[in-house]
Amino acid sequence: MAYDTNNIFAKILRGEAPSFKVYEDEKTYVMMDIMPQTTGHTLILTKEPAANLFDLSEDAAQACVVTAKKIAPAIMKVTQADGIILSQFNGEAAGQTVDHVHFHLVPRYAGQDVRAHAKEQGDFEAIKVLAEKIAAELNQ
Amino acid sequence: MAYDTNNIFAKILRGEAPSFKVYEDEKTYVMMDIMPQTTGHTLILTKEPAANLFDLSEDAAQACVVTAKKIAPAIMKVTQADGIILSQFNGEAAGQTVDHVHFHLVPRYAGQDVRAHAKEQGDFEAIKVLAEKIAAELNQ
Repeated sequence: MAYDTNNIFAKILRGEAPSFKVYEDEKTYVMMDIMPQTTGHTLILTKEPAANLFDLSEDAAQACVVTAKKIAPAIMKVTQADGIILSQFNGEAAGQTVDHVHFHLVPRYAGQDVRAHAKEQGDFEAIKVLAEKIAAELNQ
Repeated sequence: MAYDTNNIFAKILRGEAPSFKVYEDEKTYVMMDIMPQTTGHTLILTKEPAANLFDLSEDAAQACVVTAKKIAPAIMKVTQADGIILSQFNGEAAGQTVDHVHFHLVPRYAGQDVRAHAKEQGDFEAIKVLAEKIAAELNQ
């Protein structure tokens, strides 16, 4: 599908909108989800202008999953979660809310359900602290 | 975590248990989920003996996402779904039911919820037909 260069994630990647950044490399950008489904919900953005998995290059898809592998252990360490879900949504019917490819890392805690996706804004101060802790863990 | 070579997916990969196979290459094996959350629910198995994303090699993770990119369009074409979710669960708290790394491709249909994960067995005849149609679409 056509890529809208004014989507919010494109703006974040251009530095035109703020984010709670965790990590960045040549092909990916990692930040906290500001409407977290659970504590520690993190997003991995491709830097490629692709709306969905169908449009994304193999190289960019590989970069996202490699970054997920790098970030997930740091999230687990910081949040002390019991498990973690990696997911990526394509299309509104699949829950995609921003048409720029991103992978979710959603920590799961035993006995706790997840909150609805992209519904309720989290506590920005708590999210900022988490972003800093995960970034610090990555730099260990 | 320790890898149990007798998990059901290891048995399927060794040909010791049946599956509705869709596709296979050097590093991945694709089959239908027999307890589908929606029509067309497909699984991408790594051929690496890894229980979760933390234990999986970068190379094997990359192979899974490349296969997902290959299979997803064929699933969309066959099912005429409105969207599709790619997901991968780590740990029982995250919904992982088999400790062998696998990615889910779950088609989503507008206005339809997903069924619970790994709860109810599907119609094997219908699943077999879907597997054949998706495999045929891949061979186009």
